[in-house]
This record gives sequence, structure tokens and C-alpha cells, in this order.
Amino acid sequence: MYIILVYDILSDENGARISRNIFKICKKYLTNVQKSVFEGEITPVLLKKLNIELGKFIRKDKDSLIIFKSRQEKWLEKEFWGIEDDKTSNFF
Amino acid sequence: MYIILVYDILSDENGARISRNIFKICKKYLTNVQKSVFEGEITPVLLKKLNIELGKFIRKDKDSLIIFKSRQEKWLEKEFWGIEDDKTSNFF
Repeated sequence: MYIILVYDILSDENGARISRNIFKICKKYLTNVQKSVFEGEITPVLLKKLNIELGKFIRKDKDSLIIFKSRQEKWLEKEFWGIEDDKTSNFF
Repeated sequence: MYIILVYDILSDENGARISRNIFKICKKYLTNVQKSVFEGEITPVLLKKLNIELGKFIRKDKDSLIIFKSRQEKWLEKEFWGIEDDKTSNFF
């Protein structure tokens, strides 16, 4: 399946560390398209692994992480209205 | 069509003001699901209007805004791995 993953980590004393970890984990499975947005093809087994890995960091009362799933990538078209590639994501 | 809109505004001296404006404009057309993530059904005409309104604020060399388009919402399924509703978006 094809997924878009977006996250928003609360900026408290642990926020920066958690963000870095979430970013690194997502990058192992998906393509980074914006600072906290990833996309890509993934199997259900790998999605489960990703869920388990992220579950160690995401705080269910503070952080938001949404997965949009599509059965086929061809149903999704992308438009860039600002910077084409995410040049803001190189800060890690 | 159904779209997911994600944006990332550079945090410079104008960043906060631009973010607030982008947020307000998007909220007129779409549903806010995470701090800088919106989704919803939109017609091509309204999408064009949204593009024009946002174009007044988005800086093409600094900010990122991506639109993912899907022909049918039923092709998209959503999972929340953190906070269910975006409680982080009430700060505007």
C-alpha cells in the first residue's frame, strides 16, 4: 500500500529528542517530503514494524501522528506550491 | 476531488504571521487534522481559489506546501497513532 505519514511532536523539554527519533525511524521506511511529512510504498508487515518502533517515542496524550493509506499510488497526484523539494529537512 | 494539504513555513521574522494567515485561509476550505495538515473534498474551482489566496503568502524560496490529490476519498483510510483529534491546533 501507499501511505502519507504526518506528525506533530509537542515542543516540551523532550520534544526535540523525540522529533529526531521519529524522523530517523520514518526515514528507514519512507521518503521524506517535508519536515514532518513522509510518503511511500510499504507492506502491511513493515507498517506494523514502523508502528512498533514509533510507539516507543510517540506520547499518546501529547503528540499527533496520522497515517493516510491509499491502495494505489496512482490515485494520488502531488502538487508543490512552495519549495519543490524539501530543503528544510536537512537540519537533522 | 479529495486532498491532503501539508505546509511548513520557515521560522524567520515573518514566519509566525505567515503561518497564521496560511492556517486561516486553509480553514475556510478544508478540515484541520493536525497543526499544519488539512484535508477535505474540494472542487477544482475552489482549489484554484485556494491556490491564489495562499500564493499571496507562501514564499517559493522558503516555505513548503504540498497538495496530495485523490480522486476518491474511499481510497484513503486514516489511522491515528498519537492524539486522536488535533488538540494542538487550538493555539491560533
